[in-house]
Formats: sequence, C-alpha cells, structure tokens
Amino acid sequence: MSDPLPILVHGASGRMGQTLLRLCGEADPPCRAVAGVRREVRQRVVGGVPQFSSRELQGTPAFDVAIDFSLPVAFDGVLALCLERGAALVSGTTGLSDEQRHALAAAARRIPVLWASNFSLGVAVLEELVERAGAALPGWDCDIVEMHHSRKVDAPSGTALSLGEAATRAGAEPRYASLRAGDIVGEHAVQFTGAGERVELVHRAGNRDIFARGALHAAARLAGREPGHYRLRDLL
Amino acid sequence: MSDPLPILVHGASGRMGQTLLRLCGEADPPCRAVAGVRREVRQRVVGGVPQFSSRELQGTPAFDVAIDFSLPVAFDGVLALCLERGAALVSGTTGLSDEQRHALAAAARRIPVLWASNFSLGVAVLEELVERAGAALPGWDCDIVEMHHSRKVDAPSGTALSLGEAATRAGAEPRYASLRAGDIVGEHAVQFTGAGERVELVHRAGNRDIFARGALHAAARLAGREPGHYRLRDLL
Amino acid sequence: MSDPLPILVHGASGRMGQTLLRLCGEADPPCRAVAGVRREVRQRVVGGVPQFSSRELQGTPAFDVAIDFSLPVAFDGVLALCLERGAALVSGTTGLSDEQRHALAAAARRIPVLWASNFSLGVAVLEELVERAGAALPGWDCDIVEMHHSRKVDAPSGTALSLGEAATRAGAEPRYASLRAGDIVGEHAVQFTGAGERVELVHRAGNRDIFARGALHAAARLAGREPGHYRLRDLL
Amino acid sequence: MSDPLPILVHGASGRMGQTLLRLCGEADPPCRAVAGVRREVRQRVVGGVPQFSSRELQGTPAFDVAIDFSLPVAFDGVLALCLERGAALVSGTTGLSDEQRHALAAAARRIPVLWASNFSLGVAVLEELVERAGAALPGWDCDIVEMHHSRKVDAPSGTALSLGEAATRAGAEPRYASLRAGDIVGEHAVQFTGAGERVELVHRAGNRDIFARGALHAAARLAGREPGHYRLRDLL
Repeated sequence: MSDPLPILVHGASGRMGQTLLRLCGEADPPCRAVAGVRREVRQRVVGGVPQFSSRELQGTPAFDVAIDFSLPVAFDGVLALCLERGAALVSGTTGLSDEQRHALAAAARRIPVLWASNFSLGVAVLEELVERAGAALPGWDCDIVEMHHSRKVDAPSGTALSLGEAATRAGAEPRYASLRAGDIVGEHAVQFTGAGERVELVHRAGNRDIFARGALHAAARLAGREPGHYRLRDLL
Repeated sequence: MSDPLPILVHGASGRMGQTLLRLCGEADPPCRAVAGVRREVRQRVVGGVPQFSSRELQGTPAFDVAIDFSLPVAFDGVLALCLERGAALVSGTTGLSDEQRHALAAAARRIPVLWASNFSLGVAVLEELVERAGAALPGWDCDIVEMHHSRKVDAPSGTALSLGEAATRAGAEPRYASLRAGDIVGEHAVQFTGAGERVELVHRAGNRDIFARGALHAAARLAGREPGHYRLRDLL
Repeated sequence: MSDPLPILVHGASGRMGQTLLRLCGEADPPCRAVAGVRREVRQRVVGGVPQFSSRELQGTPAFDVAIDFSLPVAFDGVLALCLERGAALVSGTTGLSDEQRHALAAAARRIPVLWASNFSLGVAVLEELVERAGAALPGWDCDIVEMHHSRKVDAPSGTALSLGEAATRAGAEPRYASLRAGDIVGEHAVQFTGAGERVELVHRAGNRDIFARGALHAAARLAGREPGHYRLRDLL
Repeated sequence: MSDPLPILVHGASGRMGQTLLRLCGEADPPCRAVAGVRREVRQRVVGGVPQFSSRELQGTPAFDVAIDFSLPVAFDGVLALCLERGAALVSGTTGLSDEQRHALAAAARRIPVLWASNFSLGVAVLEELVERAGAALPGWDCDIVEMHHSRKVDAPSGTALSLGEAATRAGAEPRYASLRAGDIVGEHAVQFTGAGERVELVHRAGNRDIFARGALHAAARLAGREPGHYRLRDLL
C-alpha cells in the first residue's frame, strides 16, 4: 500500500474542480489534493486543502500530477508549472487555441501529458471497442445516437464525434442522430447493422462524478510515466 | 367453435396478398380465403384458392370481409364490390386520392371500413399507449426514433408520423430521428423524458408477417360490425 | 396563481424528508412546507421550516396535506393528526402492519389518503400502460426485467411486483428477472412478445429526487379531494 | 475476381444445410456448392447441386472446404473425408463426444479446422469486445441477459455461456438472466456496470440466415490456411 498520490487541482472553484476535491480520497488508487488553484481566493483552506490564486502558483507545494479543468486563459500557467516541477498534466480544459495545443505537444517531450474531452472510463473503453468493431465488421452500416439534456447546444456531442472518429479510423462511415431532452447526463449508442443482425455498443452516464473519477484514475496512471502525449485509452 | 370467416384477398399477387393467402388459416379466429383477385390471372387456382381478375369481380363467391392491399387504380372496384355485397372492407392500399378517401368515408355509412398504414397489432397498441402517456406526462420532452432498412426512402416513416400524431393529440410536441441501416424491418421508440426519469415505449418488428396477421385480425373483428369508419385501435 | 399548498413533512430527518424540504418550492404547483416532524428536534428551524418532535404534533401549524416517509412506529401519530385536522395524507412509509393498513382504509372514509411504494410519476404512468397493453395483447408473453444497485436485497423489486400485478389484472402472466449491479437507481422494463413483434415499456430513474417530486405532485392533486383511498394513478 | 470457392455441404437436408445451399452464391467472396451430403438421397440433384448419401462420400467431387451441420453419428465420416482430401472443415455439429473432439484436435495438425456453436459474425465480434471490455473495466459488475424463443429449453444459451467465458477470461464474474418469449431469434446483452456509468454490448439476430452466412464467411477465410484449430474470431 503506497502513499496517496499528491495532486494539484487547477480550476478548483469550478464544478469539476469541486467534484475532484470531494472525490479525491475515494479514488482507487487514492489521491490526495495538496493544493487547489483558483482565480480568486476567498478562503485560504477549503475542505482541508490550501487554496492558491493563479498569481501564487510558485508557492504551491510539491505534487506529482496537476489536474486542470479551468479556462484557456489560465492554461498556460499550469502547463508552465508542470514543466518547471517535472510533474504530469491531465487537462480537460476546452477551447484551447492552436498555440496552446502546440505548447502542450511540445511539453510532452519533457513531461507526460493527457488531454481529453471526456474522462469517463466507460467512454474511453467504448471508443476502443468501436474501433475494433468497425474493423471487424466491414461494410456494416454505422449509426451513432447520442442523448443529452436540453440545455446542451452543440450537436453531435464532442464524445459522439470522438466515437465517430474511432469508427472512421476503422473504415466505417458513421452517421449521427442527436436528441436533446430533459436532464439526461449523457448517453451514446453506436450501432453496427449488417444483414439480419446488429451489434449495439452503448454508454450511459448516470451522474457527473464519473468524469472526475476518470480524471483521477488517469492521473494515477499517468504519474511516473515517461514523457509523452498520452490518450485516455493508452492508460486503460 | 364457429366456421372460419370467409374473406376475399384483393391484390392477391402482391407481397402482402401472398402472405395473406399463406397465413389465412393460422389466424385466430381462423379465416378462409374464398377468392383472390389480381390484375392478370395465369393460374385459376393458387394454393387451393380460386383466382379472379379485376374484370371478374362480379363472379367472386360470397365473402364477409375483403382485405385489400392493391393499387389506387384497383381500389374503386373493391370498394364498389363491398358496398354491393354488404361486406366489410379492410384496406392498406397507399396513395389513394382525395376522391377515393371521400368515397371510403361515404361508404362507411353503409358498411364497416378500416384503412391503416400499419397493421401490426403491436403498433396499434403502441399508438394508444403514446397518447395516454403524452396526456399523463405534460411538459415532458417527447422524441421518436425510428429505424428501417436502408432502401426505405421516406423519413420519418408513416408509422412514426402516426405515433407523433398520437403524441400531439395528447399535447406533446414530438421530434423525430430516423435511422436507415441494413435490413431492419422496422423499430419505433417513443421517449418521454422528464426531470430525472424517462419512459420509453418501443415496438420492434421482427418480420413482415405481422402486418398480414394484423390485417386478418382486424378483418375478424370488423366482420359483422355496424357500418362505420373504424380505426385499427378501435378493434383492439 | 394560487398560494402555495401548505404541507407538513412527516419524517423530516430521513433521506426522503430532506429531499422533500429541498424540493418543496420547486414543485408544480408549488408547495410550502409549514412544518417538519422528526423523532428528535435538535434545531428548531431547518432551512426556514420549523421542526417539531413526534410528541409535539398538536403544536404544528395548519396544513392541507401531510407527506409521510417515516417508520411504522410513527405512522399512527400522523394518521390521527390528519383525521383531527381534516387534512389529506400521502404516505410512502413501508412495513405497515395489517392493523395500520386497516386504520388507513378506515380513515379514507373521512379524509383523502394515498399510499404507494413508488412515487415516480413515470412509474405510475407505466403501470397504467402495462395494464392497457396486457389487455390489448392477449396471449403475448410478458417479461419484467428490473435493475437496481447491488445493495438492494429484495428481488423482484416492489415496483416490479406492482407492474406485474397490473399485467396480471389484464390477464397476462408475467415472469421476472432481476439484476443487481453498480449503483443503478432503478430501471424497469416490461416486454410483451408476440409472433414476430415485441412491445417494450421501460422506465429509467436517473436520481432519487423524482420520488420526492412525485410525492409533492400527488399531494397537490390530493388536496381538497373527496375523502377516499386513492392510488397514485387516479391522480394523473 | 477469383473463381467461387468449391464447398461440400454436409448435412444438406437439415435446416442449416438447406439455408447454406440457398445462400451459397450470395456469399462474399462467393462460394459454390459442388455437393450435398445427406443420410438418404431421394433426388439426385437439388437446386442444381448433386446429392450424395453418407455411404457415397468417396464419390463426391473435389472441394476446398466442407461445411458440416449434421449429427454426431455422421461427423466421423466428414472428418475422415477432409483429411483424405486435404480440405478444410467448418463444423457446427453439436453433441460431439470427447473422442470426436480429440479426433478434431488431432486432425488440426494436418488440415485447418473450425468448430463453433454460433456462426454469426456479430456474435464472434461481440465475444472479442466483451473480453476487451472486461479487461479494461476491472471491478465492474458484469451481467448477461439473453432472450430466445419460448421453445428453447436450455438456459443460459450456449452463446451466453461463450460470452460469459470471454468475460471470465478477462477477470469479470458474469451473472446470467434468460428470457424465453415468443419467437425471438436470439438477443444477447452484456452489461458492465460501474459507479455512475454503464457499458452495454448487445447483439440482435433478426433471422437465422446470418448463421449460414457466417459459416460461409468462415469457410472462405479458412480455405488455404495452414493446418490448425481455428476459432471464429481468429478469422475476422
């Protein structure tokens, strides 16, 4: 039994940040939040975890992995910090510029980094299964149906597009259907239809904790790796 | 145990006509085809059933119900025959003109008639359930997802539209998604999504025999009724 | 726009009681908790709502409906209080004795009462749909598959049994399959299978708030009714 | 474009044998039945294909692959014939004795052989996906739900057990639920349930032709291979 993995939560005041702080100790293997970073610090300690503002990054204690769900404007800071400390970076921040993506790729030569749009373990597995199924079922029709809450504006979802890319890599030609209804957290079904039979690969998200759990899981698997640009599925 | 119901199969050479002749005796209650009517008669007797051309309608034996899956050009003939004989008419012929629809409605004052786009018993039941659910779940989102074989060109399917009309009658505002894949016979899912819960009402057709069975079932229930313009669900 | 319905929350310290207090104002039509009743009162006011112990029932302010998710030992008290005040009673307390059930039935001659094992609106609707489908699909096979979290010990679930009773009333002979996995809140699927086709009626619960919302909904519809022993579905 | 693969259909009078003869030419790549073998020959030629009795195996023309859906009592004959001719053997005959299984394994040192309980391509792919998912989702609950027509007596189905073995190889502990209803051809769902999320892997068979198509597909991929004991999934 090793010590809990020390992590830094970047974007600690957001919904994902708060969930990460809450679920940290329940992760398997366990993680320990040694610091939270947020734009403005009102309370120096939240849930036992010291908080730092974006301008106080240098003062943060030692950590092995930073988990970042923040905003593009704050991303450069956490990337520089990880490089400086030789720590790994797990990021789910969306809306990064091309320059930021290039900076991330460049950093991957010196530290292990991972960026993903969906950190659910189940979706990562599904993506791999879709690619495998697509390759093994040439000529079958491929349809992706996704359902999300009615406040979601983009369609198809980023996750559906990732699943579609997996199918496309395997030679399938996916079509998409998007439903927006109620407060559905997120459901994705990928159907392969042949003559007289059908294979359906489905993921159902019941709550949003799974995304935080997935990020913690990824952090634990990324820590101590060789520098590189990892995908979630590489860590399964 | 009563005698089998004598029926006339109008459009006997089509796919539905042939299936009707094949399944007639298996129906519950049993039916008996006393005549088949087709454009051109090459064999006088097919499967033990005497065949008549469209020009020989007057020579057909007595029947209680005509089941018609033919073409608009032949429809007037069978309607006139039913009126003349005082027999009931079950029709699934598509593409009728407005005049023909009016003629059908007028005939309903003298004989029992039924027209439907889908004769599956399950779909008829589903339509009623959808209307009931829509009324009982005000404000819930309503989505209809239908899947058919890739050769089907119209979308949404006629059945999906009928289900949507049932939802609309109940005050719901259905949205549609259509998938075309492989050789799927036909699947319809109507989803009602509220806060934190979802009701799904689904019909899956495994083969096309169910449409013939439904028409025979409807014929048995229509025979001997008061004149009127019935819907499939009235006969459940 | 009428005033919010004044309700008393009996069993205010339990999981359902707390959820009721939290969701009261969001109900449609809106309710207002005028009192919470719990075994021991530590704080006189919780979330703006005055709290009373089981021994202080007489001191509670006026209310139109009591919502009770407590224990059998406390049930007699809230029933007597409702009779005394001429208020309606909505109860989801499980494990009532036969005497208590008889007392509830007797009370229904003087006040409107409702007891249910599942207050989700969707399940109540599903139950009605199952009965309707069972009646309309005689001879079809009926299977009920339910899924719940792995800590649930009873199987089939009470809700599955209620759905099965609805099917049985309609002449079907339901069979049950129960799955216990992960933290599934609750899913019930009732399948009717005929020759070549299948109708599936499914309910998926995404979170437990729906049970509190259903109880509030029922309370709003029960208030002001004639005395009687209502079922949830009577109030849809 | 190469010549169609010459195959021998062993068990030509059975349901699978007849379907094989019917679908042979539609296979991709195309096959050509050069002979049918059955217990008793009444017609020397069926559908253009010469028929031989079990006692006339020596007289059959040259073939590259024998496809065998017969009975254990006839199995030894076709195995010996394939060894003698140096042809491949695809068999779906059930109920083989241990001796026969050993003989098949021994033959695999000299010719390519394949035995499977389910020849649907989709099921073969599903089995591989289940093993992959089980390995990638350690600690998740695994449930297998299978549905078949009500005449099927064994439960769980052989295919469900094969899927369960795939899950077990990956470290999962599958539980089974079996439904028997109507005339369902065959549906298998493997669910992996974790905290807050679920992955469902489903196969739906729409008709029985897929099993014949799968056997023809396997035959085409087995022809010309090195001797060995292949599994269906090795040929994908």
